[in-house]
Amino acid sequence: MGEYQRPTVSIIGAGNVGEHVANLIAIRELANIKMFDLPRKTEDKTFEVVKGKALDIKQMATSLGVDVDVKGYTVTPDGQGYEPLRNSDIVVITAGFPRRPGMSRDDLLTANVNIIRTVSERIALYAPNATVIVVSNPVDVLTYATLKITGFSKNKVLGMAGVLDTARFKAFIAMELKVSVKNINCYVLGSHGDDMVPLLSASNVGGIPLTKLFSKEKLEELINRTKFGGGEIVNLMGTSAYHAPGSSVVEMIEAILRDKKEILPCSVYLEGEDAKFYNAYDVCIGLPVKVGAHGWEEVVKLELSEEEKKMWESSVKSVKEGINRIKELKLI
Amino acid sequence: MGEYQRPTVSIIGAGNVGEHVANLIAIRELANIKMFDLPRKTEDKTFEVVKGKALDIKQMATSLGVDVDVKGYTVTPDGQGYEPLRNSDIVVITAGFPRRPGMSRDDLLTANVNIIRTVSERIALYAPNATVIVVSNPVDVLTYATLKITGFSKNKVLGMAGVLDTARFKAFIAMELKVSVKNINCYVLGSHGDDMVPLLSASNVGGIPLTKLFSKEKLEELINRTKFGGGEIVNLMGTSAYHAPGSSVVEMIEAILRDKKEILPCSVYLEGEDAKFYNAYDVCIGLPVKVGAHGWEEVVKLELSEEEKKMWESSVKSVKEGINRIKELKLI
Amino acid sequence: MGEYQRPTVSIIGAGNVGEHVANLIAIRELANIKMFDLPRKTEDKTFEVVKGKALDIKQMATSLGVDVDVKGYTVTPDGQGYEPLRNSDIVVITAGFPRRPGMSRDDLLTANVNIIRTVSERIALYAPNATVIVVSNPVDVLTYATLKITGFSKNKVLGMAGVLDTARFKAFIAMELKVSVKNINCYVLGSHGDDMVPLLSASNVGGIPLTKLFSKEKLEELINRTKFGGGEIVNLMGTSAYHAPGSSVVEMIEAILRDKKEILPCSVYLEGEDAKFYNAYDVCIGLPVKVGAHGWEEVVKLELSEEEKKMWESSVKSVKEGINRIKELKLI
Amino acid sequence: MGEYQRPTVSIIGAGNVGEHVANLIAIRELANIKMFDLPRKTEDKTFEVVKGKALDIKQMATSLGVDVDVKGYTVTPDGQGYEPLRNSDIVVITAGFPRRPGMSRDDLLTANVNIIRTVSERIALYAPNATVIVVSNPVDVLTYATLKITGFSKNKVLGMAGVLDTARFKAFIAMELKVSVKNINCYVLGSHGDDMVPLLSASNVGGIPLTKLFSKEKLEELINRTKFGGGEIVNLMGTSAYHAPGSSVVEMIEAILRDKKEILPCSVYLEGEDAKFYNAYDVCIGLPVKVGAHGWEEVVKLELSEEEKKMWESSVKSVKEGINRIKELKLI
Repeated sequence: MGEYQRPTVSIIGAGNVGEHVANLIAIRELANIKMFDLPRKTEDKTFEVVKGKALDIKQMATSLGVDVDVKGYTVTPDGQGYEPLRNSDIVVITAGFPRRPGMSRDDLLTANVNIIRTVSERIALYAPNATVIVVSNPVDVLTYATLKITGFSKNKVLGMAGVLDTARFKAFIAMELKVSVKNINCYVLGSHGDDMVPLLSASNVGGIPLTKLFSKEKLEELINRTKFGGGEIVNLMGTSAYHAPGSSVVEMIEAILRDKKEILPCSVYLEGEDAKFYNAYDVCIGLPVKVGAHGWEEVVKLELSEEEKKMWESSVKSVKEGINRIKELKLI
Repeated sequence: MGEYQRPTVSIIGAGNVGEHVANLIAIRELANIKMFDLPRKTEDKTFEVVKGKALDIKQMATSLGVDVDVKGYTVTPDGQGYEPLRNSDIVVITAGFPRRPGMSRDDLLTANVNIIRTVSERIALYAPNATVIVVSNPVDVLTYATLKITGFSKNKVLGMAGVLDTARFKAFIAMELKVSVKNINCYVLGSHGDDMVPLLSASNVGGIPLTKLFSKEKLEELINRTKFGGGEIVNLMGTSAYHAPGSSVVEMIEAILRDKKEILPCSVYLEGEDAKFYNAYDVCIGLPVKVGAHGWEEVVKLELSEEEKKMWESSVKSVKEGINRIKELKLI
Repeated sequence: MGEYQRPTVSIIGAGNVGEHVANLIAIRELANIKMFDLPRKTEDKTFEVVKGKALDIKQMATSLGVDVDVKGYTVTPDGQGYEPLRNSDIVVITAGFPRRPGMSRDDLLTANVNIIRTVSERIALYAPNATVIVVSNPVDVLTYATLKITGFSKNKVLGMAGVLDTARFKAFIAMELKVSVKNINCYVLGSHGDDMVPLLSASNVGGIPLTKLFSKEKLEELINRTKFGGGEIVNLMGTSAYHAPGSSVVEMIEAILRDKKEILPCSVYLEGEDAKFYNAYDVCIGLPVKVGAHGWEEVVKLELSEEEKKMWESSVKSVKEGINRIKELKLI
Repeated sequence: MGEYQRPTVSIIGAGNVGEHVANLIAIRELANIKMFDLPRKTEDKTFEVVKGKALDIKQMATSLGVDVDVKGYTVTPDGQGYEPLRNSDIVVITAGFPRRPGMSRDDLLTANVNIIRTVSERIALYAPNATVIVVSNPVDVLTYATLKITGFSKNKVLGMAGVLDTARFKAFIAMELKVSVKNINCYVLGSHGDDMVPLLSASNVGGIPLTKLFSKEKLEELINRTKFGGGEIVNLMGTSAYHAPGSSVVEMIEAILRDKKEILPCSVYLEGEDAKFYNAYDVCIGLPVKVGAHGWEEVVKLELSEEEKKMWESSVKSVKEGINRIKELKLI
């Protein structure tokens, strides 16, 4: 009919992170929401947790005077029940197994790539024009797998990682300096967490480089706290973080739905000039890209110092190993 | 120095509901936040979950460009560690035990009033000018206990219940009629949940009474779904709701911090003319009150139909029994 | 490419009201904005005021961290320069002459219908799927003219009037009762201003009917103040209001862009069952309608008291006269 | 009573800028608002424009569901009518004459310092703990005058200038590069407008210095457009800008009310170490400062390049001349 349609965001995996993506989308009245998850089975009962979460979020929205549709769909491990993905503008994948005792790294990779296969095929079938945001870990490897399995244009598949690392880095700096988070500009590259590459040469507070604001030791300490920021929270809570991961995904969603052309660090697939500039081929890895209505639209080319280059190469190498491993395991 | 100070909201009990109160306060940049909770002990480790949640919420706020202090404090069951309550403008109490197998109703009451005793004494000591919002269940009884133990003015102690019931009722109506939640006006009285008294005579959608919009059967169905709205979610999730309970508390907080004079259904202590009008003495129970900077400021007197009166009396009776029981048990 | 596009709102006439529509859309980051207006000529210079306003609003948005396109286009009285209307999702018409000394009522009608003709033809040409919101006065007559000249489906043409009257009525009540505007539910019908029909039977504060809250005299006073609310501001400022008229239009825009299905009083064209129910044929006049992605989607049928019916009939008659007059003048 | 009070912002001068400060405060529900202005007299009538604007803004707030008090007060040129300033947390001064034909520069200075004298004395009398934001031009000179006449602590008096220059600079860059305004970090020093000192060494987009993104010529062009950004709008509109100036003031207000510790370029009085670092004594001039609950709290020390230093010295000199002139004229 040629008229404007409200956007729809689908979220596959309604664990803590997926749920908090939905929570914030609803609070901000950004889009209608569809949540998909497996049932949770206990000895004597099967719970449709995803439906409960959707209903609770809908009731929250109502108390806030917000009109959004929030629906929960119970799906099966073999991919039944995904038809409501139709007309999704964005699909967020948070589904995945955490590492469990006795599971080898390969077991985990295999399990998670298999999940990615199932949901990517459904996305390709039902929502072929959607932009896909991958949150499941290891995020760079699974972003690569999603891109290959969906067959989508590279611009339509983004992994979430650097936005979260950046938020953590900025939070630690803000707490240290007692300065508004709005004044802190930090840039990170590379893989999520341990392999993160902070670009100190470009990072600053109100125009003053971090290297002038902190001693070398202090800066090292802040960077390490950021690299292990996920672990710090696991240590405190006994479970992974979800508030900041959720809002980081929503920052990417807003950039797409509002066509902001916002530069955000995302895991993307490098080709041509971009691959050459960053010397990283056939890999998805965290880089600053412009995010807008078309997904990620442009790689931003940042000059690295010699030290940063070394860290970057090591980060690329580490992701390549994961990608090669899933190729060797014939998972993609 | 006579200058404006940013408000502080303290949250005692950082379970799912307390955590979602903090989450929404941060997203809306309403106030600085302090969260208090016991450590969680497992066989081989003690977790300071409250500190993890506070950190995660702080990092989320950072990603949203929001400047709020969010701090988590680990306290002890006997009331150590509450000094940071100082300067709180609002204190939210969500602490409490859920009913566990083998626990009698009296056991549960005793356990929860004891918690209320501990925290109320600390609130009275450290934050004597704060407004207190009670969320713990059974909410009317515990609001009464909080009022008595703190010794606060009646206007400074409110129980949260009706805001949530109303949100649920409105959500069900909105889903049924496909109409904006902004057009739905519902009023509920009485105790939370099963004993809720919906005021159908006053409730309407866009000025059309509910009784004209729905058949008697359909309306009955919607009301019942609301009464057991908490149970519906437990049934789906295997755990209690928290998104809508959290936002309902924040609606009350906003009304106080912005001095909105907003009429909201809250559990309050009735006296004088108010007690006479509603024929309910020495009890805290859900009623529409004007909420503003001074806590709740005025009881709104709604005419009840004969049928509504009966439901109301039964609701009052049920709360009175709980209050009498904690008196008999010498808990207050 | 089948992907989500950010909505665009075009505003024809960048006087105070049009400008404040743009201002609020930008602040809320709702849509990209295009503003159209004639140049302003003085003795020695021609100003492109619309470009200045667009630039100022764009700079404001920047200071707020908001990404919106805001563009100003200078057009000619004979309709040149409207090509950028293409792809508009909503077009707001605020263009029109105010009454000037020596101008007869017919002169004014003629002048304004001619403006409507010019812009409606351009809208039909360039933005045939847009929803049109008419703000120019006399709003009911010009909404009718817009509908006829564009040839659009009746659901795609709405006049703004009742939302503003309602806001004024609620503001006066809120100031009188010191109660949150969120608790005030008022319903008005009929033509804008003097001919407004307040539905006292349905209007209430927190569920208490207005007739119980105010004496007859006081209520009369509040209604009269509302009817002449526009004049009160002209009297104080020497010019017409624009903040509240602007936000009233944006409330309608939000209902459309977010597909809220919100019941709002709008001037719409009545047919069939709706015309029969309200006994008003071949006329555009203020009525509560559900507003969503498809424009106005449904007439809400409110029961009128005998007194309200009389006022309503007089309001309908008054609009009919205006419509008949533009027919007699062969303006449409 | 020790309880939290909603903040109040008073605005002296309800011309376009003052009015748009009020407009945005209301939309964001930040504070109660008091507006003060002279009556506007025409041949046959006296208009209380400030009351009309306040009422219009109150009605707008109502339509948005926002509860704020907005009051307009008509005052006299000799300072009668300012009692309602009491309890203001922030006072914004926008009052002042524009330059009129036949007025010498000294005439204009004299007229505007006299206005500042009148209102500063009233602020000191009624709102001795308020933070004062000066918007009237020439802003650096009048900020100095306000500081001296009120006798307030230097931290409580800030001039608005650089926030606006920065917004304009960022807007021009965003339009040029098609990139989110959130990614653009620009820093300016010195006096407002023509004498503005852009810190290119610190300014960047997503971490890439401006000098790498633009040719020297292009950058020069963008800087010049910024310096004459006010004039560009006057040229288009025939009147000064107000949307972006208004939101720039509100950015400062938010930083204060939310105690954000946000680094913003403001005109402030330099002393001690700060004066030494920037080599500028007994002058108010634009510098990055941390803004929070206590007004401006700290000067941020940025390294200047040799070229920037020259521009800075020229900017300081120009402001000093104005300050010396008002001393010579015995205006302060």
